[in-house]
Amino acid sequence: MPPSKINLVEKHALITEQWSPKIVAQMNDYHFKLAKLQGEFVWHSHADTDEVFLIIKGELNIDFRDGCTTFSEGEMVVVPKGVEHKPWCKEECHIMLIEPAGTSNTGEDGDISGTGIKQTEGEWI
Amino acid sequence: MPPSKINLVEKHALITEQWSPKIVAQMNDYHFKLAKLQGEFVWHSHADTDEVFLIIKGELNIDFRDGCTTFSEGEMVVVPKGVEHKPWCKEECHIMLIEPAGTSNTGEDGDISGTGIKQTEGEWI
Repeated sequence: MPPSKINLVEKHALITEQWSPKIVAQMNDYHFKLAKLQGEFVWHSHADTDEVFLIIKGELNIDFRDGCTTFSEGEMVVVPKGVEHKPWCKEECHIMLIEPAGTSNTGEDGDISGTGIKQTEGEWI
Repeated sequence: MPPSKINLVEKHALITEQWSPKIVAQMNDYHFKLAKLQGEFVWHSHADTDEVFLIIKGELNIDFRDGCTTFSEGEMVVVPKGVEHKPWCKEECHIMLIEPAGTSNTGEDGDISGTGIKQTEGEWI
């Protein structure tokens, strides 16, 4: 069989929980994850890897310690390893994350106590 | 300065040559490349790496030895390492490729003699 087609809109439709990235593809030892975001995440960083955010629908703000940037549909950013960031958005947005398999959504330093956010490396959908 | 925003439509507008992927981002040792495609590429494979195609605009067909699949805007595919493939499209399409830095567009076995296609690992735009 030829390699499978992955439709990002159809995959996003399967996601019911916000701030909980789901894996849709693997390339070598990297995962492609989709997520629905709304509200505020926590400050965190990834000590050992860069991380890519690609905006599929809506707008995503990311606070960095030296400023906030708003990303719209069709825009992407590489957050360098070790750089603290805090994603947030008032309206729900849909994103794709690209990062090494096993990367945690909260990094090594995200404090999720009392937020309702769950730590996850992603599950396949 | 916060990490730079990369707008895929604006970057694609800078590309004038077809079948010549241009690098727009680096995550760890991987490159994100944009390309405009029209016509037929050559059969080739990448012995050491998987390769991701994400369709940004239009439609892309990829012939595999066991069938052809048509990919539309918002769809992606992971071509596993070693799998022969031949991209083609009648109308121009815009794609993003994700693969290790240094990956050649023609793989190790693409025969471009007489096609006008140039071998490239991509240049930054």
